[in-house]
Order: sequence, then structure tokens, then C-alpha cells
Amino acid sequence: MKKLINDPNQVVDDMLAGMVEAHSDKLKRLPDTNVMIRKDAPVSGKVGIISGGGSGHEPAHAGYVGKGMLDGAVCGEVFTSPTPDQILAAIQAVDSGKGVLLIIKNYTGDMMNFEMAAEMAEAEGIQVAKVVVNDDVAVEDSTYTTGRRGIAGTVFVHKIAGALAEQGATLAEVEAVAKKTVENVRSMGMALTPCTVPAAGKPGFELGENEIEIGMGIHGEPGIEKTSIQSADEIAQILLNNILEDLPLKEHDKVAVMINGLGATPLMELYIIHKKVSEILREKRIHIHETFVGEFMTSLEMAGCSISLLKLDDQLSELLDAQADTIAFKK
Amino acid sequence: MKKLINDPNQVVDDMLAGMVEAHSDKLKRLPDTNVMIRKDAPVSGKVGIISGGGSGHEPAHAGYVGKGMLDGAVCGEVFTSPTPDQILAAIQAVDSGKGVLLIIKNYTGDMMNFEMAAEMAEAEGIQVAKVVVNDDVAVEDSTYTTGRRGIAGTVFVHKIAGALAEQGATLAEVEAVAKKTVENVRSMGMALTPCTVPAAGKPGFELGENEIEIGMGIHGEPGIEKTSIQSADEIAQILLNNILEDLPLKEHDKVAVMINGLGATPLMELYIIHKKVSEILREKRIHIHETFVGEFMTSLEMAGCSISLLKLDDQLSELLDAQADTIAFKK
Repeated sequence: MKKLINDPNQVVDDMLAGMVEAHSDKLKRLPDTNVMIRKDAPVSGKVGIISGGGSGHEPAHAGYVGKGMLDGAVCGEVFTSPTPDQILAAIQAVDSGKGVLLIIKNYTGDMMNFEMAAEMAEAEGIQVAKVVVNDDVAVEDSTYTTGRRGIAGTVFVHKIAGALAEQGATLAEVEAVAKKTVENVRSMGMALTPCTVPAAGKPGFELGENEIEIGMGIHGEPGIEKTSIQSADEIAQILLNNILEDLPLKEHDKVAVMINGLGATPLMELYIIHKKVSEILREKRIHIHETFVGEFMTSLEMAGCSISLLKLDDQLSELLDAQADTIAFKK
Repeated sequence: MKKLINDPNQVVDDMLAGMVEAHSDKLKRLPDTNVMIRKDAPVSGKVGIISGGGSGHEPAHAGYVGKGMLDGAVCGEVFTSPTPDQILAAIQAVDSGKGVLLIIKNYTGDMMNFEMAAEMAEAEGIQVAKVVVNDDVAVEDSTYTTGRRGIAGTVFVHKIAGALAEQGATLAEVEAVAKKTVENVRSMGMALTPCTVPAAGKPGFELGENEIEIGMGIHGEPGIEKTSIQSADEIAQILLNNILEDLPLKEHDKVAVMINGLGATPLMELYIIHKKVSEILREKRIHIHETFVGEFMTSLEMAGCSISLLKLDDQLSELLDAQADTIAFKK
């Protein structure tokens, strides 16, 4: 294992320390936790928004903490759900009295721990709402989930709920728009190579020299099938077909597109994927409102990509376009 | 070779097509060229700024085209200098009558071709100035250079020259601040793994299972030494020591820091490197004005990083802080 680390068991702590050093104008770390919150949290008169999960998906989620997106990110160990006490600490730290929305990716560990923290917070009199993101159309139940997995589409939920919260909306309103975003976003990914969790020291799975996996999850969970490498155009077509089967779009519908790199994929390749995605959508007369190309929800140094489509109405476009000022997402 | 591409000989063309589809609000491609320019070029009353070089370093340089940075990027084939006719087309397209500055990374092919294009443009009556970036302290003459190589520090030159040009400064003023930036920026990198040029189909060099290369260039050119993998702290110390030997800083000096990923390095690892960099600078009482962590100047899917330090005075800080609105760099 060749990695730029010091101690495999210290990677999350070291990362968060480096992140606070780099971005102390935007972020602070709650003492004795792996919780990163907005420098100005709790923001008076604003619903707080928390997300989180296992680390190893950077910039998710601490990279999205800041004005117009998240108030806090709870960072578990690599690919491991954060504990309820840490999530509770985050909730307490960002609640301004207006309540807190938890944006949870649908993994069994996260579901259980965020739920437990929500109950503990409610017992303290904090209003808590939850939204579960399950945008990955690849598989229904999977290694770590009942139902579909939450992947890169989660970033759209952060952005849109965060924008409405910034306008002073109520917890019920922010929860409603987050749920509407979840209903309208679909994603699917594929992997060219595995990744290595530092504490494990070896790749989590294997792929042959010319083999790829379609529908791979962001922790290396199995997808739909292993197949031989295909062209970028064929891969884009496969992922998009699966998404469009599940998210019926008609002529003149408007979408946001995210072409997400999983960690080791050059931007060049992501743009080559987007070339085909934009061609397919143009043929179907679906209008692309905005395209996001880059690394938004990674799997350490896995090579591969995911495609996400978010169907937009006027409210969602407006909130997507609203100002955001975080490390990894600026508008 | 597993890559998300269609045809190894079409990667740059496909990438640029995808990039225009994704960012048509900011960029346009000059017809029949691999030149990307600002949507609103030429910008009246503004010095034009062009950079470029071989592709494979994305987001450099097309990702930096936009308000407050570059007016145009000339994209060669992968790791191959663009031809003079393409550079000339870029100069012609962005000149508003106020002249054009060429920001050239110091590689023999780029030096020759940008120089030739400059002469052709001058023969047409366009004022042209040139600045050569040679921030890499690792080696003096190298595989592709006479003198030092230009690497990630180039992005600071784009930012600062771009900000001054945006204020309406003259060509001589923009050239002077670009040269001042070059004088004050130093970088050094290291690689954990090689990368594969699509048309070559196999890695450009080899590194053993536990081997890294210190001082590696952004095309896989040899650095100072191959050595066994060391801790992130040790690697940060080695790179920073080399930089600080060449860029003497004293107590209370102010710097900008860039921790740049070469393509396959997780953000997590870049932040771990930054933890040590910030510790070392704090011990020396050097003030960090701002830190940039991410992928700014890559080498396809090479794993590794570079560190850049830019020594700031009031003028450089102000220009670094000025507004920029490009795909890959927003302020």
C-alpha cells in the first residue's frame, strides 16, 4: 500500500487537522470530535443542516460545509458510519432553535446511527427532521443497504436544502424541498479499479486487467455486472439508460447533470463521458440547465465515474443557482 | 490500459467537445482548433492572457479560462506542445488591441512554439509579451527542459496576472506582475505511481511496489531520487525543505500554499500533507495567507502531489484575493 499517510489508524484525524489549517476561515472542528461545522454556526434564524457518513468520499461531506449548503459534517472512520454521540454533538452545535435537518445516505450503519442521534436530540427538545438519499439506481438491496444506496446525487440535496435554509425557511419547508430533490435525482456509477482502505492495507476487491464493474458502489460494493472494458461512449450510454429508465423524462424537461470522478479518474475522461451524455440528452430534447464535472463524492483512489441527473422545476433550479460558498462547491 | 476513452488518438478532441458542452456559458472553442477562449473574448480594453501546453494536466489550462484569469488556453495533444499556428490563432482571438501576454511553462517544445507564435503575431502588429514559469526546484536541466520545469505554481501566475489585466492594466504592467510572481513562487513534487499516455498504451515509467520518486516531473520525467515509501510527514518535510532552501523566507513573511494532487491522490492524503506543511511553517513563524488544496495541475492518473509556496507582498495578496470566475478556480 503506497499512500501519503502517517498512521493508517490516524488518517481521519490527520485529514481533519489539515482541513482546519487550510480552511479556518470557513470551518471549525468541534473539540474532541470528528465533526466539522461552519465557522459561524449556529446561524441565527436558520435551520441547521447536517450530513456525514464514513470518510474516504472527500470532498463529501466536510467540503460542503459553509454558506448555502451544510452547517455540519460528521466524519466517520474510513467507510464507517460515525457514532451517534458525534452526530448528536453536531446537531447540538448547529441548532439555532429553528431545528436541524439530517441528510443521510442510505446505508444501514448511517441510518441506525443518525436515527439514534435524532432521538437523543429530540429528547433534549431539539426539533429534528431526516431525509434519506437513495439515488443509486444500480441495485436494490445491497451489501450495506436495505433499498438503494445514496451516492453522488446527495450533493444536489445538500445544495438545494442548504439554499432554502439560507433564505430562512422553516424546518418543514427545508425537509420538503430536500425530499423533493431526492425524488428527482438518480445516479449510477462504474469502477475501473478498486481502492484500499488504509487500515485494511489491501484492495477491497479485485478487477482483472481489462475488467470493469458496472453499478459499483462507493465502498466497492458489488454492482450489476463485471464486464470487459468498453468505450467511454458505451459506458455513458449504459449508465444513462439505467438512470432514464428509472427517471422518466420527456421532451423539454430540464435537468442538472453531474459527472463525478471516483478518485483516480482524470478530468479528461470525465469530460469525454460528458460529451456522450450531452449528445444523448440533446437527441431526446432534454435541456441541460447546468453541468458539474469533477470529484464530488469519491471512493479514495478508485478509478471510475458516476453520472447523476436531477430533474428540475423552477423552484429546484432557483435553489441550485443560489449562492454557495464552501470549500468544494462555490456558486 | 483501462481508461474512459473512445479512441486514444481522439482524447483531446473528445475532451474539449465535452468541456464546451458542460461550460458553454464560460467557454468557446475556436473552430478547427484545440484553443479554448473566454466566451466574451476579446474583452475590450483588457490585455489578453494565453497559456497552454500539452493536455493531460487538467484542469490546467482550459479550466482557468474565464473572468480574472486566462483569456485563452491552447491545448496540445497529451504531454505534447501545441503547434505555433494554434497558439497564433489564440493570440489573434483574444487581442483587443491592448496586447497579449503568453504564460509559458518552461519546456523546450512549449518555449519554441510559443516563441514562434509570438513572432508571427508581432509581424501582424499584435503586441506580445512572454513570461516563462520555472517554479520546480527539483532539478535544473531535465528531460524536456533547459533550466527548471514549470509546474503547479503556474496557476498562481495565471491568477495574479489575470487579476491585474482585469483591472485594465497595460501589457507592460501585467507582464511585470507575472514576472514578479514567477520570482516568488517555488514548487516541488513526488510520485507514488506512473501514468499512461493514451496513445502509448502503457505507463511511461515504473515504480516498485514500495517505491516513490522525489522530484518527479508532471510528465513522468525523472526527479532527484527513487526511494522507498515514507510517511506523509517525512515527504512533506523533504519537499518543503527543498523549496525553502531556494526561497528564503523569514519570520512574519506571508505566503500562499498550494497542495496539488497529481491525479489519483485522494483529497484525504493532500490534507494530511498540509497538516505537516502548516506545522512547519508555523514553527518558522511564516504566515499562511491562503491555502489551496486539490487538483490544479495533474499528470493524468499519476498518484502523488506537489507543494507550491508563493511569497506574497501587498500587491500579490490583493491580486490573489481578487474575483475570479473560471471552471476550476473561483474567488
